Amino acid sequence: MPITANNPNRKSWLDVPQDSDFPIQNIPFGVFITKDDVVTIGTRIGDYAIDLGALQQLNYFEGIELTDDMFMQDTLNDFISDGKKTWRLVRNRIADIFGSENSELRDNKDHRTIIVCHIEDVEMQLPVLIGDYTDFYSSKEHATNVGMMFRDPENALLPNWLHIPVGYHGRSSSIVPSGIPVHRPMGQSLPLGETTPVFGPSRSIDFELEMGFITTDANIMGENIPVHEAEDYIFGMVLLNDWSARDIQKWEYVPLGPFLAKNFATSISPWIVTMDALEPFRIKGPKQNPTPLPYLQQKGKHAYDISLEVSIEPENGEAVVVSNSNFKYMYWSMCQQLAHHTSNGCRVNSGDMMGSGTISGPTSDSFGSMLEITWNGKNPIKMKDGTDRKFINDNDSVTIKGFCKNNEVRIGFGEVCTKLLPPFVRK
Amino acid sequence: MPITANNPNRKSWLDVPQDSDFPIQNIPFGVFITKDDVVTIGTRIGDYAIDLGALQQLNYFEGIELTDDMFMQDTLNDFISDGKKTWRLVRNRIADIFGSENSELRDNKDHRTIIVCHIEDVEMQLPVLIGDYTDFYSSKEHATNVGMMFRDPENALLPNWLHIPVGYHGRSSSIVPSGIPVHRPMGQSLPLGETTPVFGPSRSIDFELEMGFITTDANIMGENIPVHEAEDYIFGMVLLNDWSARDIQKWEYVPLGPFLAKNFATSISPWIVTMDALEPFRIKGPKQNPTPLPYLQQKGKHAYDISLEVSIEPENGEAVVVSNSNFKYMYWSMCQQLAHHTSNGCRVNSGDMMGSGTISGPTSDSFGSMLEITWNGKNPIKMKDGTDRKFINDNDSVTIKGFCKNNEVRIGFGEVCTKLLPPFVRK
Repeated sequence: MPITANNPNRKSWLDVPQDSDFPIQNIPFGVFITKDDVVTIGTRIGDYAIDLGALQQLNYFEGIELTDDMFMQDTLNDFISDGKKTWRLVRNRIADIFGSENSELRDNKDHRTIIVCHIEDVEMQLPVLIGDYTDFYSSKEHATNVGMMFRDPENALLPNWLHIPVGYHGRSSSIVPSGIPVHRPMGQSLPLGETTPVFGPSRSIDFELEMGFITTDANIMGENIPVHEAEDYIFGMVLLNDWSARDIQKWEYVPLGPFLAKNFATSISPWIVTMDALEPFRIKGPKQNPTPLPYLQQKGKHAYDISLEVSIEPENGEAVVVSNSNFKYMYWSMCQQLAHHTSNGCRVNSGDMMGSGTISGPTSDSFGSMLEITWNGKNPIKMKDGTDRKFINDNDSVTIKGFCKNNEVRIGFGEVCTKLLPPFVRK
Repeated sequence: MPITANNPNRKSWLDVPQDSDFPIQNIPFGVFITKDDVVTIGTRIGDYAIDLGALQQLNYFEGIELTDDMFMQDTLNDFISDGKKTWRLVRNRIADIFGSENSELRDNKDHRTIIVCHIEDVEMQLPVLIGDYTDFYSSKEHATNVGMMFRDPENALLPNWLHIPVGYHGRSSSIVPSGIPVHRPMGQSLPLGETTPVFGPSRSIDFELEMGFITTDANIMGENIPVHEAEDYIFGMVLLNDWSARDIQKWEYVPLGPFLAKNFATSISPWIVTMDALEPFRIKGPKQNPTPLPYLQQKGKHAYDISLEVSIEPENGEAVVVSNSNFKYMYWSMCQQLAHHTSNGCRVNSGDMMGSGTISGPTSDSFGSMLEITWNGKNPIKMKDGTDRKFINDNDSVTIKGFCKNNEVRIGFGEVCTKLLPPFVRK
């Protein structure tokens, strides 16, 4: 079935600002609360939020097989369960309804009032109930940088790294959407040169520039997903900030991996941009040497050219861009990650999320964490108010943005923006 | 409010076999499918399954504040959300209804037919929807044994171990109840002396003898649970087999911890035994030296005397007991684990599960995994049919049992019994 929603020549009768992340070719999916306090599934065109629950109730999805309340839900899990064919039918239909040639909704003021409102009048929620969250570690530059700082500079990349898309389980309960502030965590760390740990507020809070992908029901327990089929099980992508407490991490992570250093918060952008919308931005990934084992081998274009930017904005201050990276730097593709994850029969469900791992490019201005950008605090960043940043200060806001662009169209993710608050005070 | 359900002198009008794990003093909670294909929450006395949904509909919980469909659900999450006071009221009421002095239900045959059936006529399900699953590593003996084998025998215990209840995130989607067979996973491993990994069926499948505890909603994001309040947020416990593929684990686990070596399957017993029922079996835990940091310090009895046993039964063969251990060996208490887990503000929800980590005692016949019992295959176990076991063979069944006993009462967990099938064959 062709992805007619991607037609680059289509314009919408809704006004779309120049360089918007959300032209009619995007049509992402999210969940929001309307002015009337109703939770619904929706999409976005320009600066308009579109209530898909209302659109369905008013019969605009006629002819597409959907349960009656498919979009009147507080998560996208059921819709994602319906599979790729349904995602494509719905997205194509939405593009049709909002295309400038289609007068049906355009000229029906009553319906428009119910279905369309300004984006500032809705409150974005988490788009899915995330059953399980896995975080990979798939940027070679990032793994090398961290290995140099935390372990052995001579053998920065561990022996398994070039053979396995290394990953670990994250915490679903602490995933929040853009806009929800996060508290600086307390925790144990070992001061330099000491042998006894101390407990207190983390002194090195970091962001990690990542992207996450959302899966559909992929397999039954025991069954694997072959790498060449993996794409069929990926619904779409979000921006992801994997908040990290470096001092806690350093003390706790041997031998079972990061735990409290990560599970205080993970922030994601609220709109899931579909793989269909990202189709024009496929490119070949980096050459893999050594050749991976057969179950991880794939041909063709499985990387995506997605420009990424991170900025830090102090309270009442001016934002400074601290990194410009790109999703194309990932060594392991999402298909390889999903094939590896299920190679042992691990069950993957609708709404599960998998993070890429920190996306670092080859140069220091494209590194994806403060740990790497400041080289563990050795080269602090200058803010516009003259202050330094080795890591993130209380009341700083960290914003990740991302978009794809070619000569015809720009498909963006919006942003994930999060303010770091001082430690929580228990009442 | 007194735990009247624990009265050791109460007898039930339902027949309870001698040495049953489920006398009227237990009253665990679970979820099952009835003969009529209805999913309900239930409890167990002797060999009888009791439909709490039916009990509620027939008004036996009058006077206790419960939503109308509290027990007509397919998970215990909402009931657990209601908190300790409600758990205790319901358990006390059930004990009263089934006490031999109470004729109300006993003498109402119509009601009895609806409410009570034989345990063999129901199909046990997972008792909770587990949002997040954390596995700790809190047996000093186990951590020492593994450190000796996998790392440095001279420094087996890592520097953080005596300061932190070390833990990591597990995979919720692969948790199954007793009785569901598990496939031997495929995976990458590095053959001894080689530098290039291979992919194939794991050659060292192991059990890990653990217990898990189930939490209620404990905090909002950012907030911690003080160690002296932690008990209020623990609903009850289950037996847990943390299936492990040792060859996969050894190759993948540095630096981010176990991943595919664990997430192919975790098996639990279906009945959650409440902390109230375990109250008589509190004892003092091992002395902690060095003294933990203040946020982990606690006084009193926070360990539990729970006898544990693991057996292996070959297909068409005789079971052999391979371990006799006890939950009392745990170095870190459940309260310390929960206080540590939330010390950084990590949100804990109703139905989350936390595993103890492998429970090994001081001697080899009390070790909690084949890795330790056979010392990584050096000392195989003899089965009754003359075959050896270094790890678990295809079509072996592994069973964990557990119970507490004093002069007055025996409170048991039943079992978690799981057959290991050969690798899954994709159709």
